[in-house]
Amino acid sequence: MRDLLVVGGGIIGLAVAWRALGAGLSVTVLDPDAGDGATRAAAGMLAPATEAEFTEDAALALHLAAAGRWLTFAADLEAAAGTGVGLRESGTLTLAYDDTDAALLRRLLALQARHAVSSRALTIAEARRHEPLLGPRLSGAAWVPGDHAVDPRAVHAALQRAIADGHGAVVPRAAVRLARHEGRVVGALDDAGRVHRAGSTVVAAGWASAPLLADLPEVTVPVRPVKGQTLRLQTDPDLAPRHVVRGLVQGRPVYVVGRSPATEGPWAGHCEIVVGATTEENPDDRRATAGGVFALLRDARALLPAIDEAALVEVTPRARPATPDNLPLVGPTHVPGLHLATGHHRNGILLAPLTAEIVVAGLTGSWFDVDVTRADPPTLLAALRASDPRRFPSPDPDTRRTDGGPR
Amino acid sequence: MRDLLVVGGGIIGLAVAWRALGAGLSVTVLDPDAGDGATRAAAGMLAPATEAEFTEDAALALHLAAAGRWLTFAADLEAAAGTGVGLRESGTLTLAYDDTDAALLRRLLALQARHAVSSRALTIAEARRHEPLLGPRLSGAAWVPGDHAVDPRAVHAALQRAIADGHGAVVPRAAVRLARHEGRVVGALDDAGRVHRAGSTVVAAGWASAPLLADLPEVTVPVRPVKGQTLRLQTDPDLAPRHVVRGLVQGRPVYVVGRSPATEGPWAGHCEIVVGATTEENPDDRRATAGGVFALLRDARALLPAIDEAALVEVTPRARPATPDNLPLVGPTHVPGLHLATGHHRNGILLAPLTAEIVVAGLTGSWFDVDVTRADPPTLLAALRASDPRRFPSPDPDTRRTDGGPR
Repeated sequence: MRDLLVVGGGIIGLAVAWRALGAGLSVTVLDPDAGDGATRAAAGMLAPATEAEFTEDAALALHLAAAGRWLTFAADLEAAAGTGVGLRESGTLTLAYDDTDAALLRRLLALQARHAVSSRALTIAEARRHEPLLGPRLSGAAWVPGDHAVDPRAVHAALQRAIADGHGAVVPRAAVRLARHEGRVVGALDDAGRVHRAGSTVVAAGWASAPLLADLPEVTVPVRPVKGQTLRLQTDPDLAPRHVVRGLVQGRPVYVVGRSPATEGPWAGHCEIVVGATTEENPDDRRATAGGVFALLRDARALLPAIDEAALVEVTPRARPATPDNLPLVGPTHVPGLHLATGHHRNGILLAPLTAEIVVAGLTGSWFDVDVTRADPPTLLAALRASDPRRFPSPDPDTRRTDGGPR
Repeated sequence: MRDLLVVGGGIIGLAVAWRALGAGLSVTVLDPDAGDGATRAAAGMLAPATEAEFTEDAALALHLAAAGRWLTFAADLEAAAGTGVGLRESGTLTLAYDDTDAALLRRLLALQARHAVSSRALTIAEARRHEPLLGPRLSGAAWVPGDHAVDPRAVHAALQRAIADGHGAVVPRAAVRLARHEGRVVGALDDAGRVHRAGSTVVAAGWASAPLLADLPEVTVPVRPVKGQTLRLQTDPDLAPRHVVRGLVQGRPVYVVGRSPATEGPWAGHCEIVVGATTEENPDDRRATAGGVFALLRDARALLPAIDEAALVEVTPRARPATPDNLPLVGPTHVPGLHLATGHHRNGILLAPLTAEIVVAGLTGSWFDVDVTRADPPTLLAALRASDPRRFPSPDPDTRRTDGGPR
């Protein structure tokens, strides 16, 4: 029996597993296709400021805290795994295509100023100096120096390696249901009929956490799949953007994330570019659609016409785990032994290190240090409370417990 | 030693091989990846009328003769192979997007009338009755009842099967150079060092015919690669077009070919839709580009917006063999034992049966019957002469022969 079973081997599950190993726990991860969920589609923006939505202060506080954790997390992980994670600290250029987009961009800048996020308006000429490949039609620009990007697939590969080196096990099987004993969750049954027993279980299965936990009357896991499609292009380095480029194009958000040139493989000497992402209230059907690909290319080439010359090498349709209040579900549940780490929607990469710290603190009873970079501690504490999985009422009032509210 | 070696196992090479087997010849085909060239990208339109270019009477005559051969060829092949070739005799709807496109469409209709091709202008309302899924903006429409489509991959698979049943051999090796003996071509050397000897050799290697024959001073093979990209979508039958839909969208040609619902496989119950095709003066780099995919989707959805909902399952970039005068190279060369069947550019599927007949007539010395459907015999004879591979001057005047002109 292990100390910890993690159900789901995406970036969230593996970050939890790796940090738990570091805290001295023995860990098994269960996933038939680790990293093939939302992690595979993600572009890897670490963008608390440019992802900020109006009226979502708690989410912004979480995102700022998460961004503050990332540099340490990346350095630790690269040291542990001996491989890079593709962190590029090159800042983000945000663009507005038409006048309505420019008005929205000004509102975003005002929001960022209120939260002491470093950002500033640029003239179009200044924006072109940052990024010479910009298209002819632009109505506004802003510079967000602290919003960066990592390569989620490189992070995931590094986590797998670090977990293996730390004697964690990643079992390529699907969890079909949780195992319970006297009310406590004591592990999970896999699709080969084997029970993986553990002192604690963390469900980090993205949107699939909801069906997996559907038969537990004490917990409500209102995560739903929200499909997103991303494109992967390959281009000569001189046609790749130098920074993360985000934009509003006739009201539609789009981003273009360029990576450093590859040093090996079939695209050695080329730069990967990720264009994303559609947001569709659709299930995880893994289908690229003509309309989704068209919309991404249309909006990305409005900002960066040079992508026309790039090779289109992959369309990646996956579903994110969305929640009703746009906050994740991170921490213990009403059921002893059961913790959640899901519901991260568009921000799973950004939130992975912070989520791992919170979950491991909850597992080990250790102190979680909220005094982190780029977030106001009282606001962050409120945000962590707001992300408590117990905030949604249980479907069965008889099974609700009163001793387990937010702490 | 075989009677015939065919270098190149695309639809042209296999059609020649199959018809040669039928004429009693023993045949070997050499191709490391049969069917993975232009055949793989092709949509399969049998469209002599809507592919007609102005001032190219010879090409139109060839295309009309070729279309006249297709119904018999398809029936023969289906009977021989025991599998379908996806022939859909549902006609072609041609659309004009804006007023300039409509003017061009009227000129095309006039050209077709001069050549006694059955076609007629439609009102937009009539066009919508043919095809209810048409987009909101259209400036003109025409109906071409005799332009149909086949599934090139199904044709290729049927040819492979029929050739195997006829004891022809398809050897999965590349020809690296032709073998010669006393001036005659007597086969080819493959990339494993094996010589395949044959009484006659037909080079049907698409654009790669040019480099293969570059060191033969007696022949000039001015075929060049012209890259084309096509898209393959899958959709519910009620969102698939009923007919071949072609269009001019702001001067750019685009086509949408729908197939009958699949009866098996992962897309059973769905209809494949092929959207094509880009025309790029680029080598055969096998790279889908963001700009190419964007342009195809933009123009296709201008005609048929419902394709937005379709799954995008494949982008297929391949190069066609183009010639300086837009006519193929079909028939014997100045070199004894060497025949050509290449240079078909955008019309390889349409021209495959006719090409096979011409080449086999040349191989066996038999009579080629020009009295075929939909083409005026004297015009067709002139077109066949115009497709003679010996029409291009040899680079080395000493090796030019005067006894082998068009006959």
